[in-house]
Amino acid sequence: MMKKILVLGAGRSSANLIKYLLEYAPEQQWTVRIGDLDIAFAEQKIAGHPSGQAFGLNAGDKSQMQQEIAQSDLVISMLPAFMHIEVARICLEHKKSLITPSYVSDEMLALDKEAKEKGVLFLNEMGVDPGIDHMSAMKIIHHLQNEGAELESFESFTGGLIAPECDNNPWNYKITWNPRNVVLAGYGGTARYQQNGTLKFIPYHQLFQRITPIEVKGHGHFDGYANRDSLKYKSIYGLENIPTLYRGTLRKAGFCKAWNALVQLGLTDDSFLIEHPEKLTWKELTTSFLPTETVNLEQSVQSYLNADAEVMSKLKWLGIFDNSSLEINEGSPAVALQKLIEKKWKLSEGDKDMIVMWHRFYYKQNNQRFELQSSLISIGDDPVYTAMSKTVGLPMAIAAKMILNGEMNQTGVHLPIIPEIYEPILNELEQLDIRFVEHITACSN
Amino acid sequence: MMKKILVLGAGRSSANLIKYLLEYAPEQQWTVRIGDLDIAFAEQKIAGHPSGQAFGLNAGDKSQMQQEIAQSDLVISMLPAFMHIEVARICLEHKKSLITPSYVSDEMLALDKEAKEKGVLFLNEMGVDPGIDHMSAMKIIHHLQNEGAELESFESFTGGLIAPECDNNPWNYKITWNPRNVVLAGYGGTARYQQNGTLKFIPYHQLFQRITPIEVKGHGHFDGYANRDSLKYKSIYGLENIPTLYRGTLRKAGFCKAWNALVQLGLTDDSFLIEHPEKLTWKELTTSFLPTETVNLEQSVQSYLNADAEVMSKLKWLGIFDNSSLEINEGSPAVALQKLIEKKWKLSEGDKDMIVMWHRFYYKQNNQRFELQSSLISIGDDPVYTAMSKTVGLPMAIAAKMILNGEMNQTGVHLPIIPEIYEPILNELEQLDIRFVEHITACSN
Repeated sequence: MMKKILVLGAGRSSANLIKYLLEYAPEQQWTVRIGDLDIAFAEQKIAGHPSGQAFGLNAGDKSQMQQEIAQSDLVISMLPAFMHIEVARICLEHKKSLITPSYVSDEMLALDKEAKEKGVLFLNEMGVDPGIDHMSAMKIIHHLQNEGAELESFESFTGGLIAPECDNNPWNYKITWNPRNVVLAGYGGTARYQQNGTLKFIPYHQLFQRITPIEVKGHGHFDGYANRDSLKYKSIYGLENIPTLYRGTLRKAGFCKAWNALVQLGLTDDSFLIEHPEKLTWKELTTSFLPTETVNLEQSVQSYLNADAEVMSKLKWLGIFDNSSLEINEGSPAVALQKLIEKKWKLSEGDKDMIVMWHRFYYKQNNQRFELQSSLISIGDDPVYTAMSKTVGLPMAIAAKMILNGEMNQTGVHLPIIPEIYEPILNELEQLDIRFVEHITACSN
Repeated sequence: MMKKILVLGAGRSSANLIKYLLEYAPEQQWTVRIGDLDIAFAEQKIAGHPSGQAFGLNAGDKSQMQQEIAQSDLVISMLPAFMHIEVARICLEHKKSLITPSYVSDEMLALDKEAKEKGVLFLNEMGVDPGIDHMSAMKIIHHLQNEGAELESFESFTGGLIAPECDNNPWNYKITWNPRNVVLAGYGGTARYQQNGTLKFIPYHQLFQRITPIEVKGHGHFDGYANRDSLKYKSIYGLENIPTLYRGTLRKAGFCKAWNALVQLGLTDDSFLIEHPEKLTWKELTTSFLPTETVNLEQSVQSYLNADAEVMSKLKWLGIFDNSSLEINEGSPAVALQKLIEKKWKLSEGDKDMIVMWHRFYYKQNNQRFELQSSLISIGDDPVYTAMSKTVGLPMAIAAKMILNGEMNQTGVHLPIIPEIYEPILNELEQLDIRFVEHITACSN
């Protein structure tokens, strides 16, 4: 019997999701109905495939949403995260299961009981981060626990970066995802984690100088900086008693020291609008953050921040000392900086992105302490079928296939943290070349 | 003919306002009707004076507000600032003038035309800061402009401090006003000012290390740190072309360097709730902000912040290394810090507060450059008739007398920045011993 998959949203992250679904559609007897506010996005991704149907979607039009969801067998929401809850409520009405790549909200969690009663599955956090990070971590955690190991420490870092072959600027970074999130990473909050049983806090202005140096064997050196809240993963991962738990984001080594210079100056500030930014140059804006008058701006910045030559050359390359216009008519320093990095860190034609994920565990087994590192490197195929799109879309697509084939029979609100969900998905991801490499070393103490 | 003054709110800042009004009430034939949510506050301040009438006020009860305002000849609102606009709207209905000590809101400004039509005056920013700062600055500015001087620079700082004779802790500070505002001073934003024609920005994490050292002759040394937005005063003071404009807050010298240590650690953070703060000690909380594990917490903080002995002794005195409980059941680090400073910086029985205001102008006149310093020191009489209460309440009380005597005939929404308002008020304040001392020096360049 023909089944209908409804995909809501056909933006950048949906490319590999849609590709996978269409590839399997003939043998699985699926119709893949793909809606986007801009129907052209849906059409491009279908590219004439006979199993695909594009339609113009107004996600705010409840009667359209009702109609589409009622006619489907499974819903995949790639809409902005805040919209998932409305989709979920309509799914409940029509008893349809739902997959999202986003963090589960409290409102979504509150639907658990009703979803169970109606026999549907709301599967969230099914992308890469959150998503593959959960699955790969839980597989190791469950394995170690089954072996009787005592977990002492779990650190996990993920980064959306540029592939080494396209990495040709001094920051070793290009914009492969939402540039506003790049500028405001960590902004306005304090990161929390746990270290040897002690709560640890990092205020924003210390975030990029409190980095974890990381080497992924064969792939070079990275900087890890803390994510906002690592502590909530204690309960999600069932690691209530683990002494050290730390989650963060990856950049190539050296990035954070230079980004920290922008933070220390104040250029990532998003709390006020610059007066008449259309009249300002970068040289003037940077000068505004210095305490004194300057004859030589670079020298003043260097001495104000006590910055080294490597940092100074990155800042100079970025253009914050230039006589060029901010090119914004309204906005905060963060908005001006976003404009600048969108230009300087722009992907070139044919550039490929790279997802790096790295876990490190310390554990004790039979009175011996071990270090386990597990890492994933995924490189994009091209500017459409990116590593981001693959690692976000493929876990969702595999889950969709399992649900429609009756191979995933959970009901209620779920994350991919139970073996019944993560095992088959990780196995198939491995076949699709999204695979983790593990190194285990016995520690000397 | 008997006139009725309505005072809304009888909290700490109302003491001298009410005292002045009651003193003048018999000769001026006033009845002073004073409402507070807690009628006891109003009764205490009236202290049996026959011209005073206390009543229980529910400022949210519109019909009570209507009735009270309708029966009055003049309204003085000491309510929380956000409530003034509702008072102003009722005043318009009943054609009553209004005085407030608070920053004029855009909504209040929007009533200007209607207030003019109805012939009433809404006089705002009539306290100390804003209030006396405007009046004293405008008097000097207008005088210099009339003398043909060219203004190059105006800096203005105000602080609510502890009187020297009661100043007996290493921070030289006690809580003489809202403690939450003390903890969150400058938090979460970027200060803006102008220096030699250049916009200047100071992000929060730099605020307390970018201080202006200030000496008030005969009263010692102070630290000045920048207020959020100095730039808006260009238009308020009619100083659109002045190269340097800087407004800030005063602490005793040495305070800011030690407060900066708390900011750098992250202890002023208000962006997240500490997990189970009821179980934490100060030693544990401070440890949480350090990157590494510590054997000796004080040594670790000293080396992390590169703090000097003076700063370390202030931190130690405050108690952030102690094994004592945070004594809060819920809250951010800022909430815990507020609890601590409320205890350590508590006023003792009989302690007196002190208001310090300091202006510095640089100007050119007849090809000579001059520096003009003008300073005000006001010391409280006792814990009720504080310097804060005097400097906030007396300008309002004097304005009230002038309005009722027909000596202030402006209509519409006003600040005390025109000579017709500030001249007589400053003159009477001087008689009440709230006086500025001026020093003018010719500069060598």
